[in-house]
Amino acid sequence: MRYLSGLNPVAKVAEVLPLVKRIDQVEKVATWDAVGRVVAKDVTAPHDYPPLPRASYDGYAVNSEATPGRFRVVGTVLVGQYRRDIEVKPGEAVYVTVGAFLPEGADAVVPEEAVEREGDFVVVKSKFEKYANVDPPGSYVRKGTVMASQGTVLTPFDVVGLLDVGITAVYAYRRLRVGIIATGDELIVPPIDPEVATELVLKGKVIESTASLVAWYIDTYMPYVKVEERVVTGDKHEEVRFYVYKFLENYDAVIITGGAGPSEIDHFYKLGFSGLRGFRMKPGRPTSVAVINGKPVFGLSGYPISALHGVIRVVEPVLRHMANVTRPPGSGWVYATMAQDVQGEMAQIVRVKLEISEGELLARPIKAKHHSFTEPETCGVALIPPGGTKKGDVVPVLVFRDVRKL
Amino acid sequence: MRYLSGLNPVAKVAEVLPLVKRIDQVEKVATWDAVGRVVAKDVTAPHDYPPLPRASYDGYAVNSEATPGRFRVVGTVLVGQYRRDIEVKPGEAVYVTVGAFLPEGADAVVPEEAVEREGDFVVVKSKFEKYANVDPPGSYVRKGTVMASQGTVLTPFDVVGLLDVGITAVYAYRRLRVGIIATGDELIVPPIDPEVATELVLKGKVIESTASLVAWYIDTYMPYVKVEERVVTGDKHEEVRFYVYKFLENYDAVIITGGAGPSEIDHFYKLGFSGLRGFRMKPGRPTSVAVINGKPVFGLSGYPISALHGVIRVVEPVLRHMANVTRPPGSGWVYATMAQDVQGEMAQIVRVKLEISEGELLARPIKAKHHSFTEPETCGVALIPPGGTKKGDVVPVLVFRDVRKL
Repeated sequence: MRYLSGLNPVAKVAEVLPLVKRIDQVEKVATWDAVGRVVAKDVTAPHDYPPLPRASYDGYAVNSEATPGRFRVVGTVLVGQYRRDIEVKPGEAVYVTVGAFLPEGADAVVPEEAVEREGDFVVVKSKFEKYANVDPPGSYVRKGTVMASQGTVLTPFDVVGLLDVGITAVYAYRRLRVGIIATGDELIVPPIDPEVATELVLKGKVIESTASLVAWYIDTYMPYVKVEERVVTGDKHEEVRFYVYKFLENYDAVIITGGAGPSEIDHFYKLGFSGLRGFRMKPGRPTSVAVINGKPVFGLSGYPISALHGVIRVVEPVLRHMANVTRPPGSGWVYATMAQDVQGEMAQIVRVKLEISEGELLARPIKAKHHSFTEPETCGVALIPPGGTKKGDVVPVLVFRDVRKL
Repeated sequence: MRYLSGLNPVAKVAEVLPLVKRIDQVEKVATWDAVGRVVAKDVTAPHDYPPLPRASYDGYAVNSEATPGRFRVVGTVLVGQYRRDIEVKPGEAVYVTVGAFLPEGADAVVPEEAVEREGDFVVVKSKFEKYANVDPPGSYVRKGTVMASQGTVLTPFDVVGLLDVGITAVYAYRRLRVGIIATGDELIVPPIDPEVATELVLKGKVIESTASLVAWYIDTYMPYVKVEERVVTGDKHEEVRFYVYKFLENYDAVIITGGAGPSEIDHFYKLGFSGLRGFRMKPGRPTSVAVINGKPVFGLSGYPISALHGVIRVVEPVLRHMANVTRPPGSGWVYATMAQDVQGEMAQIVRVKLEISEGELLARPIKAKHHSFTEPETCGVALIPPGGTKKGDVVPVLVFRDVRKL
């Protein structure tokens, strides 16, 4: 189908999901290498952590029932040492550093600076309760707790948590592998002399940046996907077709930027795939998707903002489904309150300025008829649902400026 | 000073700023390589873009005053072609594709699917206004507009915008170069057999993850800083001291994780630097900073969340100042409304669960006495100002879970 007619509602992307092949290969991954990976099997704590009371302050480990009192210092346990040979009897103390497991008999830590040292003795003048300055057994995690459920994309924070309790390997789905084809005779591809590039732009050439933006979005917000290969082709259709089939053979999905429209130099319609061609979204109407043997081929606009819209509305939901993701990782997405009406029957992406007003994050649409990111005050892009939004509505915004008051 | 007494208010970090040496080396960087770089000289558009009317739709370029009408197709201009030899006379049309500069004489584009083609002619049945389906000259940017002011950290979106208008090089400050020293005899460092690592953790060892989290935060939220070198040392003080002085010689700043406390195995106080030792923040009180010949040395806790707190409150403001940053890049920071009171006189960082409630992003503190990230429902960390917050207050949250409704 060459011309775009009978555009699909964006919700129709859901119809693609049953057609694509989900990743079912699972591999064991060391936790320290697992940031961005999708958990394939619930990660359950196999033990309490800490297994023993653990000092949360530098000082003297004692039996709390013997405080206040005078204690003979009988030894030292530094963090990282495992000394089950030392026992703390009433009237005795052992010097411990933060993170050390308390020796047998001790259940509290008196801070180093809270004691008076007298030769081999320390004097503790006040009462210290059980587990004072101590992380009790199981306080980080209890055996059997699901720390990351199947479908969770592990973040650096998850990895810290898992390593802290000694969970050093996880089962993860293999990453999705994607190839991107940027099309267009107009494209010039860095590296190139910057001055030459400027001259070419003023004569109608375009520096490839749309596929780069798509790849950046995937790297940043979809770490469970690896962009394995990127090519830039001209508008010779056979060249585009060659790479589509090559990438279909080698990867799980193919993304084409440019050539999604109906013109004589466009490609997606020439491929002859059946699928969803064109969506009720603005910009990015030519966004298309077809599924070939369980592998999606996406057609995106050649314009950066339109392609980004297509990625967010169409590519991301499909790839997330293929990657078995149920808990996506954090990102620069925030909720903001619209500062004015945005009208329109189609789903839209609009550039916005963000400002903090009385503790509320306000998104003010930026008037720009073109499809680039040239307005210096732009702080992000807001997703407007079909039918538009009213002033005061709350919408998701992909922020690319820090909105904190610093 | 060994013991922590007379902790500094976090606002006192401002006193460090005049002591550090700001980056003054400027280099010319190709725009496509400039993501994360700090603009050293306002980036000003040297020309209008587009320089000529540019098709925003595939179709037939005509003179709008001649519509409706019948036009003889006299040529084709595809995107990327520069054809100032073709002129469109009244009664003539030229086929153009999206992004092509309109030939002389044309000022509107009639969509391909809106004409009737009759041999060499096209029939246009309705009136098309001037600049219909056209990006007028200067609509992307006007000559002289400051597209990125000095101090702006360039994002992928900025780079797209600059490239789109043909700005192919920018002046940027050189990146800050930092070395990180993770200290502690208890540390075990991947790669290591995961099962062995688990056994060691249960016997009191700690898998190095704090310095990794610090490096991740810097890579993700401070792209103007490059972590040039990371070492893990034991607690032999001479080894730590050796790296501190080596890194001071080679880099712009030094970060030490662990050893910030007052115990016998701690390091920061043994270095003997004068500076700010300890802050009124929780966790992370031992956070310290000293400036040696204009270069800061930071001491952070060995606990991940405490070190992160120190990075956000102390390291980031200082390095941002050194890097000349006035407009930091976007990140996972959002504003959220506290779902309950958080009390405390000190500045705090608390783990929170985030939920959307009636269009509002609610942050609910997670009760965890320990210093890790083991609670599966944690979505981010909220910064609580000195004095605490009341239910209903809006606070900044570093989100690491996607809070969008998907």
